[in-house]
Amino acid sequence: MQQLGRQARQAGRAISKADTGQKNLALLKIAEAIAADSASLALENHKDLQAGRDKGMDAASLDRLELTPSRVEAMIAGLTQVAALPDPVGEITELRYRPSGIQVGKMRVPLGVIGIIYESRPNVTVDAAALCLKAGNACILRGGSESIHSNRAIAACISRGLQAAGLPEQAVQVVETADRAAVGELITMKEFVDVIVPRGGKSLIERISNEASIPVIKHLDGICHVYIDAKADLDKAVAIALNAKTHRYGVCNAMETLLVAESIAPQVLPILAQKYAEKQVELRGCLKTCSLIETAVRATEADWHTEYLAPILAIKIVTGLDEAIEHINHYGSAHTDSIVTEDYTLARRFLREVDSSSVMVNASTRFADGFEYGLGAEIGISTDKLHARGPVGLHGLTSEKFVVLGDGQIRQ
Amino acid sequence: MQQLGRQARQAGRAISKADTGQKNLALLKIAEAIAADSASLALENHKDLQAGRDKGMDAASLDRLELTPSRVEAMIAGLTQVAALPDPVGEITELRYRPSGIQVGKMRVPLGVIGIIYESRPNVTVDAAALCLKAGNACILRGGSESIHSNRAIAACISRGLQAAGLPEQAVQVVETADRAAVGELITMKEFVDVIVPRGGKSLIERISNEASIPVIKHLDGICHVYIDAKADLDKAVAIALNAKTHRYGVCNAMETLLVAESIAPQVLPILAQKYAEKQVELRGCLKTCSLIETAVRATEADWHTEYLAPILAIKIVTGLDEAIEHINHYGSAHTDSIVTEDYTLARRFLREVDSSSVMVNASTRFADGFEYGLGAEIGISTDKLHARGPVGLHGLTSEKFVVLGDGQIRQ
Repeated sequence: MQQLGRQARQAGRAISKADTGQKNLALLKIAEAIAADSASLALENHKDLQAGRDKGMDAASLDRLELTPSRVEAMIAGLTQVAALPDPVGEITELRYRPSGIQVGKMRVPLGVIGIIYESRPNVTVDAAALCLKAGNACILRGGSESIHSNRAIAACISRGLQAAGLPEQAVQVVETADRAAVGELITMKEFVDVIVPRGGKSLIERISNEASIPVIKHLDGICHVYIDAKADLDKAVAIALNAKTHRYGVCNAMETLLVAESIAPQVLPILAQKYAEKQVELRGCLKTCSLIETAVRATEADWHTEYLAPILAIKIVTGLDEAIEHINHYGSAHTDSIVTEDYTLARRFLREVDSSSVMVNASTRFADGFEYGLGAEIGISTDKLHARGPVGLHGLTSEKFVVLGDGQIRQ
Repeated sequence: MQQLGRQARQAGRAISKADTGQKNLALLKIAEAIAADSASLALENHKDLQAGRDKGMDAASLDRLELTPSRVEAMIAGLTQVAALPDPVGEITELRYRPSGIQVGKMRVPLGVIGIIYESRPNVTVDAAALCLKAGNACILRGGSESIHSNRAIAACISRGLQAAGLPEQAVQVVETADRAAVGELITMKEFVDVIVPRGGKSLIERISNEASIPVIKHLDGICHVYIDAKADLDKAVAIALNAKTHRYGVCNAMETLLVAESIAPQVLPILAQKYAEKQVELRGCLKTCSLIETAVRATEADWHTEYLAPILAIKIVTGLDEAIEHINHYGSAHTDSIVTEDYTLARRFLREVDSSSVMVNASTRFADGFEYGLGAEIGISTDKLHARGPVGLHGLTSEKFVVLGDGQIRQ
């Protein structure tokens, strides 16, 4: 790992200077290599799938492990999209003259070396590499050991792309050992790694952020809320509450708790209850909710804290905006929260006062996503407060330094 | 401390919602209170100074402890300046329509609660409080125990200012205990504190960043370089190299190593050597330097790594830009580095390739400072890569969340 780290640091310096054209060429050449190798990629992926089945991996994990033709297409499309994004590196902003005569501005610069730790999802290998590369960073990718054949095959495509563009192969390194100690080393190599991005289950992320001595960009939970305000448009409220819960269950931006203003609850909850019933979503409500929805069971305190990632929804009736905001800031995970309202003042207050990484008005929480936000892709989602909040794209993989232009000025 | 933390968290929520006018009013009222209390502030400061002398504090520490009339003036001016700065909180940028119909942008938001740990410099109490307040954060200030009387008196002025503006007094809390364990608790209260800013000597900062479980904004060293390029203007080179070293010795943005291109060294070094001799600056040079400057002693490997904070300068002759950049990225501390050159292409390369928090062309490193950069003031300087690099002002005390405006959009 030390060797990998040293190579990454060196490659990072080269890639930080690479010009935009070179980086874009590398991305497109990687896409070409993947397209050309799709048959052998499928074969390698089958090896992983077979081994996974033999090991008794569950269906959801096998699903994430599989490189279906559409996922390979998505990988290729992702590379092309990232190539088309503006290069963030070197962008100078706010360059202004100061009374002393110097000009002071900020230049966007790469972070250096990014360590990414993720589960057995081979498509993440390409997405992560593409974003790191475009942002001028070297990266060390450590995917789940069950995807080792797929990752090796993808790594070979990435190497070919980098070579074709005249960039150092070590700019993207895939950790090939299944040894768990490698992760422990990766997250403490301060000298060689500047930031760690863990992706996966909560326990993995918790362990990594506790043990890392390198800064970590992460989110632990996605306890997302939709608040249906008294002034909500009923159709929008129903559509959003349904979409936020049922569009996909196992994702971090799915709604887990629905808050409803007391005065609109009798109108909106019966309609929603029926729609949720059709989708077999279990409802757990506060006392008032249960009096409006027969099929709801009583929620306990633990429900407000729970990220179900399943067809279960907690519902609470609140007096109004203040209680909704208080509930969200107390029980939420600072991920994504949405208000449904036609009231201008309340919408404005919700946007400012809800302390989450994504705050929405009249939109489904499911939009909290790098692609939907136009970031091109995301390396992960951050619910921390420093550096980056929400979906982390190219900007989150860079930082800004100060640049000063003078004509010989000295400090008086 | 837990109690302080809880109060800070609560006050932080209130201050994050406070409007700009209210925050500015508080800043101006604090300034008024300090002006009105200047006589009693001086008395309290005298108690600290007397106790410091009795304890045998060194002259430099006593100097930092003293609230001279001009420092009190500067505190008042600082408050007025911060009040005049644009409010960063709530600023929405890059709000753009996406193909789905939603509008996605970023809103600048406070970090929450900032813990600041500093030496016995009472003026820092006001500067730090002003910046935190304007950025919508609550803060917990822990100054050196030798400044306890001064800090209490200043804290009373801050309280009055906050009250006069209708803001919670707990938005700025000064830790009054001299107990060192308080620091240990402050830097691990994850639940109540979002970021720690340590200011002071390297050992203090090192200890805090090793022991903190909360993110730390810090710089350890200021090993700043000036590189005099072959195409440098001789007058600018001499003025900048002299100013960067001798304007003040004990500051982190003073030059510690001078790099000189081989071809210009015979012209520039003798002039500089004479000027440094007049200021009694000790010169430690590489072999080539020593052959040009009789009075220079041979530098050892350790010299390139050293932040002297004293009238000592290391000098190295390099072949050109590549060696200069390599030296800076290897031995520097990513603080502030400057090139003196009239060469457009080399200046442009230096700006991009030197990986420091401030990179300059034809300006003295002494400009690396919040006031000089127009940030109003600085809470500290960061040489880390995440979140903020260089002087940290209002922006560094905030972060950005995503805001999404829709008309009922759902994810397809």
